[in-house]
Amino acid sequence: MGEFDLIARYFKRPVRQAALGVGDDCALLQPAPGTQLAISCDMLVQGRHFFADTDPRQLGHKSLAVNLSDLAACGAKPLAFTLALALPEVKEPWLAAFAQGLFALADAHGCELIGGDTTAGPLNICITVFGEVPVVNGTSLALLRSGARAGDDLYVSGTLGDARLALDAMQGKLTVPDAVLAAARERLQRPTPRVALGLALRGIASAAIDVSDGLIGDLGHILESSRVGATVLADQAVACVAGHAHAAQSTDAAGLHLSQEQWRSLALCGGDDYELLFTAPPSQRAAVAAAARASQTPVRCLGQIEAAAGLRLLDAQGQALPNHYASFDHFA
Amino acid sequence: MGEFDLIARYFKRPVRQAALGVGDDCALLQPAPGTQLAISCDMLVQGRHFFADTDPRQLGHKSLAVNLSDLAACGAKPLAFTLALALPEVKEPWLAAFAQGLFALADAHGCELIGGDTTAGPLNICITVFGEVPVVNGTSLALLRSGARAGDDLYVSGTLGDARLALDAMQGKLTVPDAVLAAARERLQRPTPRVALGLALRGIASAAIDVSDGLIGDLGHILESSRVGATVLADQAVACVAGHAHAAQSTDAAGLHLSQEQWRSLALCGGDDYELLFTAPPSQRAAVAAAARASQTPVRCLGQIEAAAGLRLLDAQGQALPNHYASFDHFA
Repeated sequence: MGEFDLIARYFKRPVRQAALGVGDDCALLQPAPGTQLAISCDMLVQGRHFFADTDPRQLGHKSLAVNLSDLAACGAKPLAFTLALALPEVKEPWLAAFAQGLFALADAHGCELIGGDTTAGPLNICITVFGEVPVVNGTSLALLRSGARAGDDLYVSGTLGDARLALDAMQGKLTVPDAVLAAARERLQRPTPRVALGLALRGIASAAIDVSDGLIGDLGHILESSRVGATVLADQAVACVAGHAHAAQSTDAAGLHLSQEQWRSLALCGGDDYELLFTAPPSQRAAVAAAARASQTPVRCLGQIEAAAGLRLLDAQGQALPNHYASFDHFA
Repeated sequence: MGEFDLIARYFKRPVRQAALGVGDDCALLQPAPGTQLAISCDMLVQGRHFFADTDPRQLGHKSLAVNLSDLAACGAKPLAFTLALALPEVKEPWLAAFAQGLFALADAHGCELIGGDTTAGPLNICITVFGEVPVVNGTSLALLRSGARAGDDLYVSGTLGDARLALDAMQGKLTVPDAVLAAARERLQRPTPRVALGLALRGIASAAIDVSDGLIGDLGHILESSRVGATVLADQAVACVAGHAHAAQSTDAAGLHLSQEQWRSLALCGGDDYELLFTAPPSQRAAVAAAARASQTPVRCLGQIEAAAGLRLLDAQGQALPNHYASFDHFA
C-alpha cells in the first residue's frame, strides 16, 4: 500500500467544522468571530514515550490525549488536529487499530483531523491540536501559567503517580497486585484529558498547567511564569496516588507496601499524569467545587500560592520536607 | 543542557503577531476578521529527507521552506509555525546553526515560532505552519487543487529536476560539473518557497499545488481533485532543468551529457522541487505574466487542462510519449 492509499484508507474523513480537511496543500480553519485559536504540539517517540509493543489502539488514544490535555490546561474547546506520522513499515492491522483509538477520542471531543504528513522512518507521532478560546470585551479567557497570585489556593484534579507506578511495575522495579497494576496501566496508556474541567474553570482559575513532567516540575513553571512561590502539603498529593485507592485515608489501602518516601516520589514527580494543576483565589472556592462537580472530575486542594519565591514542601504535621523531587527532562 | 534551557536558549523569541508564543501549554493566535487560517504540516526524517551530515543551517532553512511552500500553493500569507524536534543528543553548535537557518527564513517571511515540543529520539523535525487567506464576500481566496477546468493553461514556476540532479550526483549515480552541482545542491538544500508568487496568483490561478513528489505525481493530484485530464509538453518541462542553464534552448547547455530520457525523468519525476504547479484560464494569461513579474518568479506554460481524464505526454514534435514516470512514494 502506498502513502496516498494509506492516508485515504485510514486518515481521510469528511470535516464538519473546518472549511477544508485532508487532501490539499493546506487545511482551512475559520475560527468563530471573537475567539482565539489555542495551538499545542506534542511529539511521541517509540522507546521514549511508549514501548515498542504498546497496543496501537491505546497509542492512538494517548497521542491525541496528551495534546487535548494541553488544550484543557488552557481552557480551550477542542476543534481540530493535524497528525504527522513516521512509520518503519506499513502494517495494516497496526494502522487500523491506531486510527480506531485516535478517532474514538477525537470523536468524543468533537475534534477533527484536518491534515498531516506520512513518511517512512523510526516510529514517531507528532500531533498539533487546535482549540477555541473566547475573547470577551477584548480579554482572552485562556487559562495561562502566569496568572497565579499570592493567596491563591493550589488544586490538582484526579490522581497522581499512577502512570509512574505502572511504568515502574512494568520495568520490574516494583511488585504491584494485578488489580492495582491494571488500573495504573489504564492511566498510563489511556490517560483522560481533563477537557471538561478546563472549560468549567474559565473565569474561575487564575492559572493552570497540565501535569506531564511531574507535579513539582510543572508547578515550577507556574511559579516561574507568575513570579510567586508556594507551599505544598506533600501528603495531600500522596493521597491521590493509585487510582481507586485515592479516596481511602490510608496510603497503603492498595496493599502496595511502599515506603512514605516512595509514595511521595510517585505523587510529586511521577509524570505522565495529564491532570490539571491550577490556582484560584479563595473567593472562588465554591465555584471551583461547582466546576469539579459539573465536569465530574475530582479536585483536591494541595496548598497555597505565596509571594515569597520558591517551593516549600510540608508533611502532614506541618514540618518542612527537603525538596529533592526532580522534574522529568528528556535531556537530563 | 536540559530540555527547557535548550528551548529558552535557541527557540524562545518574543512574538509580535501571535497573542501568546512559546512557554505556555498552548500558543494563542487570533486570525484577522474575514480571514481563514491555512494550516500545513511536514515531517522530515534523517536518512529519508536529508543525509546525516547535512549542514544544520541548511536543514533549518529547508524544514521551514517545505512548509512555506505548502502555504504558497494555497495562496496563504505566512503567519506562524510550531516546531517539534526529536534529537539523538544535544549538540549546541548543531542547534545554534539549525536555529540560525530556520529563523533567517522565518524572519524573511514574517513567520514567527509560537510553540512546539522537544524530545530525545532519532532526528526528526516536524513543523506545522499557519498562514492567512482572505475571505471576500463569503468566498475564500485560497488556491485549491480542485479548481482546474478544461481549457485552462498549465504552468510551472522556476526550474524542475535540480534537486534530483544533486541527489543523483551526491549518490554517485551521475557525474556533474562542479559549477552545476553547486547550483543544484543549493536547490536541493535551500529550496525557495514561492510565497510571493502564490500570493500574486490569488484570484488568477484556478488551481495550484507545490511540486514535492515530482511533476507527474503532483499534477495527478490536481487532475484527480478537479476531475479533469491534461496534455503536457514533456520537453517544456525539460527545458527547466539544471538551474542556471534553464534559459538556454539546448538542454545540454550545462554540459551534463544526459540522454533525452534522463532529462525527461529529472524534470517529470525528480521531486523536492518546491515549485508551484498551477492552472489558469486563457483569459488570465496577461495576469499570470504580471504575477510572475511582480513576484520576480519565472513561470512557464507546460500544456493544457482537458475534459478527457488522464495525462497525455507529448514530445517537441507533438508525438505521444509513454508515461512511465512514477511519483515519489515513501512506502512504494
